[in-house]
Amino acid sequence: MSRILLTVEYDGTNYAGWQRQLNGLAVQQVLEEALTRACGEPITVTGASRTDAGVHALGQRAHFDTNSRIPPEKYPFVLNTMLPPDIRVQEGRAVPDGFHARFMACGKSYTYRILNRRHASALHRCTHLHVPVPLALDRMAEAAGTLVGTHDFAAFEASGGTAKTTVREIRESVLTEEKDELVYRIYGNAFLYNMVRIIVGTLIDIGHGRKEPDAFQRAFETGDRLALGVTAPAHGLELTRVEYPPEAFQMPETVRWHDE
Amino acid sequence: MSRILLTVEYDGTNYAGWQRQLNGLAVQQVLEEALTRACGEPITVTGASRTDAGVHALGQRAHFDTNSRIPPEKYPFVLNTMLPPDIRVQEGRAVPDGFHARFMACGKSYTYRILNRRHASALHRCTHLHVPVPLALDRMAEAAGTLVGTHDFAAFEASGGTAKTTVREIRESVLTEEKDELVYRIYGNAFLYNMVRIIVGTLIDIGHGRKEPDAFQRAFETGDRLALGVTAPAHGLELTRVEYPPEAFQMPETVRWHDE
Repeated sequence: MSRILLTVEYDGTNYAGWQRQLNGLAVQQVLEEALTRACGEPITVTGASRTDAGVHALGQRAHFDTNSRIPPEKYPFVLNTMLPPDIRVQEGRAVPDGFHARFMACGKSYTYRILNRRHASALHRCTHLHVPVPLALDRMAEAAGTLVGTHDFAAFEASGGTAKTTVREIRESVLTEEKDELVYRIYGNAFLYNMVRIIVGTLIDIGHGRKEPDAFQRAFETGDRLALGVTAPAHGLELTRVEYPPEAFQMPETVRWHDE
Repeated sequence: MSRILLTVEYDGTNYAGWQRQLNGLAVQQVLEEALTRACGEPITVTGASRTDAGVHALGQRAHFDTNSRIPPEKYPFVLNTMLPPDIRVQEGRAVPDGFHARFMACGKSYTYRILNRRHASALHRCTHLHVPVPLALDRMAEAAGTLVGTHDFAAFEASGGTAKTTVREIRESVLTEEKDELVYRIYGNAFLYNMVRIIVGTLIDIGHGRKEPDAFQRAFETGDRLALGVTAPAHGLELTRVEYPPEAFQMPETVRWHDE
């Protein structure tokens, strides 16, 4: 029995999110069916992040256990012949038995893309949120910077969140502009349910002038969800990267539990 | 009666190309149906470029005549409520009666995108050609530069081309690299049928080492289609921009015929 870690890219447009569920097809289910065929035994995968319906992933991670003799680095080749073209495995590697894709993740980065122009885009309709009203970039960038550091993000969680603590460390929070495309990147140790989309919804309100650039600081102080904007739509969001501490790959029996 | 010029963006993935045809749904047909509803009279559009099935457009142009009183700049708003999300009108403007979207075009630019990495991409599968074998960028960039200037592109035309002359002027031909994405941009006065895709197929052969960087020069000298590579797949190609001379917008009765 060996534990394998996959890096998976997917276009979330046509899926009901990562996690297997009763209504609608999930990425996890499609991946498990391909793995079950490839390995010749029932396979269950554990993903690093349970992305919502419509959210994309450049670097989702998922682990599973198998008795198969497929060399770990061959999994992309084997699985990509079976998977639909909107799911592509980029990497496979053996990890210690105690490795856990979700609980051992020590860093995640997300990217949210906005197209800020008069008319919607045909080509970017599934990956960018269209905002037709001009946004004030300087105000948004100023607010984005105030997220960096360790804060209690209690106000930033959608109902349905199950995290034990709401304190998170944000290491990077940057908004860049290229022509009419705004790209927001956030990197932190972990994220609450819908946290990035609530941040982006608030940034848009700040860019509109409906909220002030100190909105995040007020939400930290008050813990009030209403200090923040609405949850931005799923399709602009991409799970870009999931990181693990180097020890996670080296020490078979050591488990470091990170709260999600 | 007034003549209107539209700028149209589309994702070509689900269309049988620009031009109306018997088998499969064309972008032209979808646009004409929306215009016919909007204007309350049968509308026929004339596009600047007859893009193939799967080819995208950021800036296709098309003109039509109408008796409708819709202000020209309102066409994007009116049409985008009727069109499917993979077709989006970006601009509408009144043009002189003698304006012709195809024959008056004096410049076109195309972009071709390649993902040069081991495994295919889920997110870019419809807009980038995946090439898993490492390509030698320096050789490709050198060859791309040899296209600039006025040449006889007789060897660069797919069968089915109808152009009267095969001499074209290329003003820009540049290959850039960002991480594993190669972006090829070409700008010229006009293009033969499948010319850009034949150029890209040849560039890939040059990057592989199957052809030499002087392949384009040899094809100019010999006129031999076999000196060039295969036609690259449609889905990596985008019609980026179509240009008209300033006079085309100003002088009602002057028609400048450019061979396509």
